[in-house]
Formats: sequence, C-alpha cells, structure tokens
Amino acid sequence: MLELNERHGTSGLIDAGRDAGSDAEAAARRDLLGVAVIGAGYWGPNLVRNLASVPEMDLRWVCDLDRAKAQQVVGRYSSISVTSSLDDVLADPRVSAVAIATPAGTHAELVERCLRAGRHVLVEKPLALQVADAERLVELAQQAGLVLMCDHTYCYTAAVSELRRLLHSGEVGSLQFIDSVRINLGLVQPDADVLWDLAPHDLSILENILPPDVAPIAVSAQGSDPIGAGKACVAYLNLRLSNGAIAHLHANWLSPIKVRTVIVGGSRRMVVWDDLNPAQLLSVYDRGVDLQATADARRVSYRTGDMSAPALSNGEALRGVAVEFLRSIRERRTPLTDGRAGLRVLRVLDAASRSLAEHGREISLEGAW
Amino acid sequence: MLELNERHGTSGLIDAGRDAGSDAEAAARRDLLGVAVIGAGYWGPNLVRNLASVPEMDLRWVCDLDRAKAQQVVGRYSSISVTSSLDDVLADPRVSAVAIATPAGTHAELVERCLRAGRHVLVEKPLALQVADAERLVELAQQAGLVLMCDHTYCYTAAVSELRRLLHSGEVGSLQFIDSVRINLGLVQPDADVLWDLAPHDLSILENILPPDVAPIAVSAQGSDPIGAGKACVAYLNLRLSNGAIAHLHANWLSPIKVRTVIVGGSRRMVVWDDLNPAQLLSVYDRGVDLQATADARRVSYRTGDMSAPALSNGEALRGVAVEFLRSIRERRTPLTDGRAGLRVLRVLDAASRSLAEHGREISLEGAW
Amino acid sequence: MLELNERHGTSGLIDAGRDAGSDAEAAARRDLLGVAVIGAGYWGPNLVRNLASVPEMDLRWVCDLDRAKAQQVVGRYSSISVTSSLDDVLADPRVSAVAIATPAGTHAELVERCLRAGRHVLVEKPLALQVADAERLVELAQQAGLVLMCDHTYCYTAAVSELRRLLHSGEVGSLQFIDSVRINLGLVQPDADVLWDLAPHDLSILENILPPDVAPIAVSAQGSDPIGAGKACVAYLNLRLSNGAIAHLHANWLSPIKVRTVIVGGSRRMVVWDDLNPAQLLSVYDRGVDLQATADARRVSYRTGDMSAPALSNGEALRGVAVEFLRSIRERRTPLTDGRAGLRVLRVLDAASRSLAEHGREISLEGAW
Amino acid sequence: MLELNERHGTSGLIDAGRDAGSDAEAAARRDLLGVAVIGAGYWGPNLVRNLASVPEMDLRWVCDLDRAKAQQVVGRYSSISVTSSLDDVLADPRVSAVAIATPAGTHAELVERCLRAGRHVLVEKPLALQVADAERLVELAQQAGLVLMCDHTYCYTAAVSELRRLLHSGEVGSLQFIDSVRINLGLVQPDADVLWDLAPHDLSILENILPPDVAPIAVSAQGSDPIGAGKACVAYLNLRLSNGAIAHLHANWLSPIKVRTVIVGGSRRMVVWDDLNPAQLLSVYDRGVDLQATADARRVSYRTGDMSAPALSNGEALRGVAVEFLRSIRERRTPLTDGRAGLRVLRVLDAASRSLAEHGREISLEGAW
Repeated sequence: MLELNERHGTSGLIDAGRDAGSDAEAAARRDLLGVAVIGAGYWGPNLVRNLASVPEMDLRWVCDLDRAKAQQVVGRYSSISVTSSLDDVLADPRVSAVAIATPAGTHAELVERCLRAGRHVLVEKPLALQVADAERLVELAQQAGLVLMCDHTYCYTAAVSELRRLLHSGEVGSLQFIDSVRINLGLVQPDADVLWDLAPHDLSILENILPPDVAPIAVSAQGSDPIGAGKACVAYLNLRLSNGAIAHLHANWLSPIKVRTVIVGGSRRMVVWDDLNPAQLLSVYDRGVDLQATADARRVSYRTGDMSAPALSNGEALRGVAVEFLRSIRERRTPLTDGRAGLRVLRVLDAASRSLAEHGREISLEGAW
Repeated sequence: MLELNERHGTSGLIDAGRDAGSDAEAAARRDLLGVAVIGAGYWGPNLVRNLASVPEMDLRWVCDLDRAKAQQVVGRYSSISVTSSLDDVLADPRVSAVAIATPAGTHAELVERCLRAGRHVLVEKPLALQVADAERLVELAQQAGLVLMCDHTYCYTAAVSELRRLLHSGEVGSLQFIDSVRINLGLVQPDADVLWDLAPHDLSILENILPPDVAPIAVSAQGSDPIGAGKACVAYLNLRLSNGAIAHLHANWLSPIKVRTVIVGGSRRMVVWDDLNPAQLLSVYDRGVDLQATADARRVSYRTGDMSAPALSNGEALRGVAVEFLRSIRERRTPLTDGRAGLRVLRVLDAASRSLAEHGREISLEGAW
Repeated sequence: MLELNERHGTSGLIDAGRDAGSDAEAAARRDLLGVAVIGAGYWGPNLVRNLASVPEMDLRWVCDLDRAKAQQVVGRYSSISVTSSLDDVLADPRVSAVAIATPAGTHAELVERCLRAGRHVLVEKPLALQVADAERLVELAQQAGLVLMCDHTYCYTAAVSELRRLLHSGEVGSLQFIDSVRINLGLVQPDADVLWDLAPHDLSILENILPPDVAPIAVSAQGSDPIGAGKACVAYLNLRLSNGAIAHLHANWLSPIKVRTVIVGGSRRMVVWDDLNPAQLLSVYDRGVDLQATADARRVSYRTGDMSAPALSNGEALRGVAVEFLRSIRERRTPLTDGRAGLRVLRVLDAASRSLAEHGREISLEGAW
Repeated sequence: MLELNERHGTSGLIDAGRDAGSDAEAAARRDLLGVAVIGAGYWGPNLVRNLASVPEMDLRWVCDLDRAKAQQVVGRYSSISVTSSLDDVLADPRVSAVAIATPAGTHAELVERCLRAGRHVLVEKPLALQVADAERLVELAQQAGLVLMCDHTYCYTAAVSELRRLLHSGEVGSLQFIDSVRINLGLVQPDADVLWDLAPHDLSILENILPPDVAPIAVSAQGSDPIGAGKACVAYLNLRLSNGAIAHLHANWLSPIKVRTVIVGGSRRMVVWDDLNPAQLLSVYDRGVDLQATADARRVSYRTGDMSAPALSNGEALRGVAVEFLRSIRERRTPLTDGRAGLRVLRVLDAASRSLAEHGREISLEGAW
C-alpha cells in the first residue's frame, strides 16, 4: 500500500521547521521541554520520531543498554546524544521529562529512579508487573507533584475519542455489551503470555471509554497453549460489568488473519470499530432491540435504522501522546491516561492471570476499579 | 442483491421435470418415496421446496395445526394435500418418511409417534429438549431399523464438507483452536435463549468436522441479558478439547452487524470460513507457528506462506439434506447427520446451560461425546 | 451462504394463502387477473414464481416451444397448464396479460401478436432488436390502450428507488459523473455481444434515475474480443450528458471477479452502490469538491463529511415488477418502466453498437432520449 | 490504523546503525555515494527519509528555493546541510548523484543542469512536460554515461514485481485485458489535469509489466470537468494493444471513495491487484474462458478453479527505488525504470492529451513505444 508508506512516512520527518543552528534557535531552545527516551527496542523509534516532531520539546538523549541500538534509532544524521547509561540522562539538568520504552520487567525500577530524580515520566504498558509496585509509583508521583503518564496509545486515536464521546454523552444509551477481537499471527513473547501482550490495549481502551457509572466487577479468563510455548497463546477474557453487561476479549497469537474489531452494543446506538478499515473506522448503527414494560419476550421490538460513519481525522496517535505529555506537564494537570489508568489495567490483568491458572474461575474485582 | 434473488429463487421451482399427469407418471410414482412435511412455520417452506425438488420423492402432505398456514406454504397452484392432523399423514400407506419442522418442544413426541408408526424421520434441531428423550428416540429408531436423521443443514454445504476434509485428512495438521462467531440482530425467541437458538448450528458443525481423535471434554458458558428478556441474549461458550485446544463460540442476538465466521488454527494450515463472503467462503492459509524441540519461546518460527481459496459449488444445502435423507433410507444406512450426532449436540447444550446458570463453572462432558 | 438460500427460498413459495379448491376460491378467481408466461428459459422460472405469488393474479399458462421445459418450470405438483403453442394461451379468454421471456430475437413478433390479441404485455429486455420494431410496438400499445411494460428489474430494487429519489430530489446536487462497473465471468452469449447482454441493465437504471433535466447527447463505445468469440467480450461505453458530465460503463464477460458497483458523483452528495454488499448497498457521502467563483484551481475546497448508509428493504425486485404490472393494468396507467423506457435503452444500445464498429467514434443521440 | 503508523513510522528512522561520529565512520564515509535531494515539497520528505536509510549513501544536501521548507524536511536534529541554491549542491565534489522532486515544469531544466554537471539523476514523474525535452535528456545521459532514472515508485512494490513475473513468465497466458481504476477525492492540481496527475502511475506500471511482445498501438481519452476547474477532473484512457486487447484506465479526482484496483485477464490466469487490501494485495485466479477451434460461441468452456494469494513482502517501495538508484550507478548499468521508460510514459500521456482535446479521437502510438 504505497499511499500509506507515503503518508505515514512523511509525518516521520516533518517538524516545526524552526531554523536549527541560528541564534534564535539557541534562545528558543531555553524555553523547550528537555526530554529523553529510554529504550531503543521495538517501540523506541516511534517515541523518538514523535517526540522529535513536537516543536516545544527538545529531545536530548536516546538511552539503551546497547548503545549501538540507540545510535541506530537516531540515525547517522542526527544531533541527538546517545548513551548506554541512565545516569548520563539524569545528570543533564535540561532533561525534565523521560519516556520509558524498556522491557516490562524493568519499568518499576526505572520509573522510580526517574521520579525520584524529579523527572516527569511517560511509560509504556504495563506500568509495572506487580500491582504493589504500580501503586507505589502512583503514590510517589503524586507526592512529588510529577506527571506519571501511561502510553495508552489507542486512547489518542480519533476512533477511541469518538467512542468515548458516544458512550459518555449517552448517545449509545445504556451499554449492552462490548466484544473486542485482537488476533493476529503475532510474535510469541519471551516474557509474557498473550493476555499480558495484547489485553493491555483493550483494557486501556475500556478504561478510557466506559461510562463513569459502569465498572468491571469480576473477571474470568481461559486460555490454551496448543504449540507448547509454555504460556497461553490463545485466550479469552470475560469481564462482568456492574450494569449486568459483559465485556469480552479474544486475544490470539496464532490467527492466520489480523482482526482488530470492537463491537459496542447500546440501547440507543450500536457501534462497530474496525481498526483495519481506515475508510470506515467507525460505523454507528441506529439499531437495537427494545423491550416493552412487560417481560413478555414476544413484546420485543427491533430498530433497524440507518448507519452513519463519522469522518475521523487520521493523525498519528503517538503524536497525540507526546502532545498530551507536554501539555499535562506545562499545565500541571493529570494527563488523560495517568498512572491510575495504568493501575486499573494492571489490576484486571493480574486478576485475569489468576483466573487463567484456575480454569476460568471468576475473580472479583472489588476495589480494583 | 438482485443476482441472489434470481439464483436462489430459481432453484425453488426447478425439479426433475417429468411430465405430471401422464400414465408414465402414475407408473413412475409407484417407485417414489412418499414423504410428508410436519410444520409450516419459518423452516417448513424450505423443506417443502427442497423435498419437492427431489425426483425420487413424492411429497404428499404438508401438515400444520393451522391448516391455512399449511395451504399458504404449498401455494394456490399445488396438488400437494394439506391437513391439520398428523393422523391423516400417518394413515397414508404411501408415506414412508416424514420431515418434522415444528417447535422444539414438540419434537420428542412427534418423532416418537412417527417412528412408532414405522416412518423414517428427518427432524429439525434440536432433536429434543431433554437428553433422556433424545436417547430414547435414538434407541427406538435403531430397534425399528428406521432412519432418524437430524437436519444439521450446514453440514451439507460445500464449505463444511471441505473443512471436514481438511481436518480429517490431516492437511490442517494438529488442531490448535476453533473460534466461531455467529452474531446478528436476531429474533429474540420466546422458547429459547441465544445459546439454544444459535449454538446448535456451531455444535453440529463441530460434531461434523472434528477429527475422530479429538473430542470436547468440558464446557463452560457465560451470558447476559442486558435487555431484560428473561434469558441470555449474548453468550460465550468455551469447549476444552481432549488435545488441549479450545473451541470457542460467540452467540449474540443484539449485534448490529451479522457475522458468520469460523477460524480454524492448525499446525500445518489455518482456515478462515466467512459464510457471508460467497466469492471466497474458505481461505486456507499456509501460515503457522512452529516450536523447536526446546521449549525456549525465542526458538519460535513462523510460516507466512500463500493463501488459497478453493472453488466451491454453491448448491443449496437443504437440497443435500433431502438427498441424503432419501439415500440413507434407500441404502438402509446411517445418514451423515444421524440421531447420535443430534444427541451429542444436545448433551453439550444441556451442560452449557448448567454452566451458564452457575456463572461459567466448567462442566465435564465425560461420556457425552 | 445458507442464510440467503433460506430467505430467498422461502419467498419462493409464500403467497396470499387463500384456500385453493373451495367455493370462495372459485368466486374469488373471477376477479383475478389471468396471466401467462411465455418462455421457460433462464428467466422464465423467476417470472412464474413471482407472478404466482401475487394474490390478485391467476397464473393460468406457462408456454414454451419445448413443452417439457415448461412443465419443468411449473414442477410436478402444479395445477398451472403448460403448452407449446401461443395460440392455446391467446385462445383462453381469461388470460388478460402475458409476460414474455423468450430469446430477444423473437420479442418483436411475440409482443405484436399479444398486443394485437388485446393482451397487456410485460417483456424482457431488450424490447426488440430493431429500433423501428420497438417504435412500432410502443405505437401499437398506445393505440390499443394496452399496457406495454419492460422488465427493467433493477428499477424495482430499493437501491435504485433510493438512488432515483436522491437524484430527482436534488439531494445529490448537480450530477458530476456516473461510473458503472458490471463485470463477471459470464456466459458468452450466442446471439449478443457483451454490450447487448449487460448494458441494458445499466442503461435502464440510468433511464430511471437521471434527473429530468439531464439527458445523454452522445455515445461512444470501445470493445475487444480477446478470445476470438466473434463478438466483443470486453466493452466500455461512454455517454456524454447534456450537463457536461460523463456516464461511463464497464461491461466484461471475462473478469475473474464479479463487480456490480455504481458511483454517482454530485455537488452536494456522492453515492456508492455496491450491489454485492447486502449489508451496505448504498453509501451516501457528504463529500465533494467545490470551486470558488474564480476559476483559479487553487481556490478549490473539499468537503469530507460523514457517510450514511440508509436502511433498505430487501424484498425481491421481480415481485415489485409483477405488482407494478398488475397495478398499471388495473389503474389504466403507464407503468414505471414502460415501452418508451425500453425504446430509449434500445436507441442508445443501437448507437453504441455503431460506435463500437467504428473504433469508438462518437455518435450523436439527437432525439433518441 | 495504529498498526500502520507504527510499522511505517518505524522504518522512517532505522538505518544501517553504523556508529556516527567515530573515526571508523569518517573512513567509511569516503566510500559512500554522496547524494542530494532537490525539492522539499510533497514528495521530498519521502526521498530524504529513504535515501538517508541506505547505508552506502551519504545524504549531504536538501535543496529548495524555500530554504525553510528544506530545513523543515531534515528536521531540527539533523546534520544534513540545507540550501536554496542548486549551485551549492553542484559545487560539492562529494555529491555524485541527485534526486529531483520539484514541480514537473522544472524537471527538464534541472535534470539537464545536473547531467551536464556530471551527476547521476533520479527524477520524479513525469520526466519532462515536452516529449522533445525528454528525448534530449535521455540522449544526454547516454552520451555522458550517467544514470538517468525515473522514480516509478510502484514498480518497486512486491505486487508489481509479482505481476511482472506472472505476465513475463507466461503464467498468465495470453493477455486478454487490463483494467485499472485509480480514483479518490484528490487534490485538484494547479498545473495538471487528472490524466497528468494520476495516469503516469498506471502507465509506468503498464510499461513495467507488459510482456515484451505486446505494446500499445493507439490511445484515446475522454474526460470532463464537471466542477469548472478549467481542466479534466474525471478521465478515461483507452489503450489498444498490439495483440487486440484493451488496457483501460479510470482516473478520477472527484470520487468519494478511494479505489486502487488493477484487473489483469489472461488465458491461463487472471489477477486482481487491490492495493488497498494489504492482507491480500494480489489474488491469482485459475479462471478463464476458452474457445474451441471452432469460432462457434456455444463451444465456449469456462475454468473456475481455485484462487491463490501469494505472500508478498511489504517493504517500502521508495526504499527499493533508492537501492536500485545506488546499484545501477555502482554497477554502471541501466536501472529498472530508466529514462526510456519515462519517455514511453510521456509519449502516451502526450497523445492522450491530444485525444482528450478531440472528444476521444483515437491517436496512433506508432513509434512511441
């Protein structure tokens, strides 16, 4: 798909276009937010490209234990410094904020070091592996008055923003069900099962779009490891919601086809989000089933009205993450996807793992949300 | 879709074209299998149209408690007799076989009456509501040497036949998972929840395609009734298979869109059946995940080869049901979808209902399959 | 696609359900419109099934030179008379209207015989092979005060009705272009090239939906015969419209895939009709290009608003044809697709054939529309 | 579509990862091919990103009359020099090759200046506006022994490479037709009509995939300007091929939906390329129409075999352009898409424009191909 190469590719290099090297630049730079990226793995390059594209930011460092990988990410033509030591980064007084994209197992320690060093932090999902660690980090950030933001990238897409609006505004009516499918022939991860690899996306979306009066109250999960990978490669996660509805997720590393679909059923509207159909990401259906006061099933009435697909901007979501990180710091406010959002996601994941180990026994989420 | 109206519509009237009314006809008719259809509801017309299209059959009666409905089904121009009494049908010595398409609650009694009257029986799903009844009917048919066939229509489509071949021949390799989605804005049934309404289709397909060495060993089901219909309108059914794989079903009456997709994962091939894409019903992928002897997850290797979509005939499935019914009677053999197949489907449904009532507790299928 | 077999199959037998054989019936029948179907080929069965489903009609005859084919169409269980002689039909005083579905080459003569016998006529496309013949038939019907209706089936689909409404009401704004693609691996016809086989569908749709103030003023066509069939198997037809827009058609017998798409561009709305996507037949886009008073191309502005897909009924189109035939006769009025509509289609086809023979030279349609 | 942002975005920054700044680097750089990019408009950033990603290249300059735009393209963190003067570039002895992405009207002069300055040239389509200019440039490059390459980007996609292989290897059999649709709600260009804007893509693909024994012999084009833009916004181009087949193109700036589909009909295989379906870019059908020795149309036979979709790599095409540019220079050979290819495309475009002006009169391509 040439078109896409072009479009997305282009966005990779456009920036505010101020004239580097001039005096004006030096002056301007004093007002910029100095940032660094820790971790030059799969996701690092995307953070680098997007942070570098924000005019109000000054990307000073890319850090990776493997210095060559860090260099590879910035490229041959870059003036961004690279290092294999976090100390170098934290020793730079002009670095006020850090974006962490290292393996999940290292998040807790690295986030804590950066927070204790007085830096604002943007961290990849999951916030940490242990709920206790995540709780400590949230607490720590609050006490220090620092921004702790989770990179729940999907929450910065036009599709999720519109879904959130439809659910929070009441346009969808009362929530009847949410069914999410996230399957693909995916990389079997060395340090996570399919739930920990994929479900954070769906749970962070759920955390973002669920109406305030609806919360998950119990979770169960079932999975299988048909290839002998030593962990679940196919999993189903079932969330019982406080209003009686079900939110269900299918996560699968072994599917021959990629599917990224979320169906939201509501009493007034129903929405289908097909993330692989850029020409029609959201389809909002004026369809539904209504029941007369009487519980007589024969008194069911159906609405099968028109469908409408809102026009959505297709900007890059991670650019939105970078901008929200900047603004929440500048405006001294909680970001859209703060540490608490990450904590909620982690608590559900943690409970789901326990259910998975017990053949799908339902686990209460009392106080988790 | 004009094309489809034409194609399927046409098949509704074409038949062997022998010249009715002639002497040759009278003679020929003596060799025909006399049949009757009981029940002129939603499915009855399809049975009538397809039984009428089999040259070796003589459709003599359409019976419904509401005689007008029976008349409506045969139409104004038909010579087929209608009646509101099953006795009229069973009193006709030239009726050797009966097709039953009445409400599920009446199956057990009607099938028994017909079998005791020495008639071969084709019955809609489910075979009965109670497992015990179904077991008695299967026993009864066997003792009487009569054909008891279940109308598992999907099993007579080219897609399911090819799926069965792919799985039984070993082309798919070892089964890794089966994921089936059957959702639509469907009629909320007065006498069944969404599982009893939709799952029989998927379970009868599963019963037909599962390799002989793989069987379901436990089932769990979760559902919700977000519209207060007094029964589950959204349900998920999870089957643990004897080889460690999962077969999972999503059944939903409240979905704004219709989805009819089955994904079968195997070690050698993976197959996607999209029943709503007539131009490409089956997609067979040479894709998969292989694991080296070592269980080291980093030793995973991926196959992402070509996809191929076999050319499939698009004859009407129910016509195949009618022909199999005729042949199994004429050849005195067990039909492809016999009473035992119906019994297996019923036992799983019955266990799933119990699980649904216990928040998804896993129920063993010991001896059910 | 089982679902479709079921749905359409069913419609094939349902009718008004009056109780045949009773006295009431005999009485009622006196008020029915007696009809006959001439031609039991590809399309005949559809006419029979749909005429038989109209309660106010009494389908008395099916006629075909091959009596066995006629019998095959009515089936073994039917009380409808069959014959190989049109005289039998025209000799029946209770036959007031005739539907003709014979080879195109016989239309002119058969329609004339029926009209001269005082019968109303519904005829398949094309009305005739020669423009002069068609003109005579239209004249003849008018003088005799008989209904002469062309079976432009697509004009009785919900999609075309809505397209017509969108264009006639002005909702689409000024027409900018129409692009129609009708390709498939189709039967190479013995007596027609791909234009005469497929273009009548598109031209009859165009005739139906074009706003009254827009007419085709010139046509050109190009084609090729890459398989040596002795006639064009691939063709492109280009209509210059009176408002400067182009209506373009791609007709192809050799395409590996079936495509049935019409795109209508307008200044206010744009519409895509995908006849192979029953879940979303029409997509109405609030998109377009506007130009400021100045012709400066840099002053172009774009609208990229929402899309909406109207809910459309999916009844069988041919049933609508039968009902319109009945009503236009009963109400003594011109049917929606009368002989004149067929004449317009024929005149364009005739001119297109001349253009095809002259390497696409543009032919004027002065006075053809 | 988050996934795509990620994937393509990433590729934007990865490079050979050699360690910039070290001595080894300085040494290595002596062996690199020094390159410059002229033009920092729509396409410039893609050239910069891809040339920068080739380890054997040293991207030294980005040049644009608007220096700020050039700076914007390289970004704030780049060590690549920017200038508004081509002289600066040509004065740098380490620049051996230049990529030109300026407005079409300037190509002829800029390419000539660079060639006369002894630089290899990669130029965007079209090579020039005037056929005579393009011929002179091709001549000039040949005499000077310099590479003159046209950026026919699509020819470097896996889809076009496979199409070329299928057609050149004879797998497709004899070519029966090519139908290409390239429509979208596109930017109305100030300096080109829809044919000059879009057709070069299709013509360059055609030039690349047509079997050596098949050539276009005549072209005709029809278009309209329904919005009063002062140029054709909707156009159809028809190429008569030497083997009797037709290659047809639909180019449209006013379509509400984007379509990028090419259908290739052959006697042995038929291929559909849907460039907007990354999961199934190419579908190869074992379908076709065969004719018996006799030209009797009733002796037509149909093949409706399986379809297969080859697995295709989805690397970025422009990266392939950059690598081919490098290799053709290093290997002193003609690139896949050389000046002659650009000249063929230009000659067809030029003839098509004349046809467009004469209501679609067919123009001979004698000696153009």
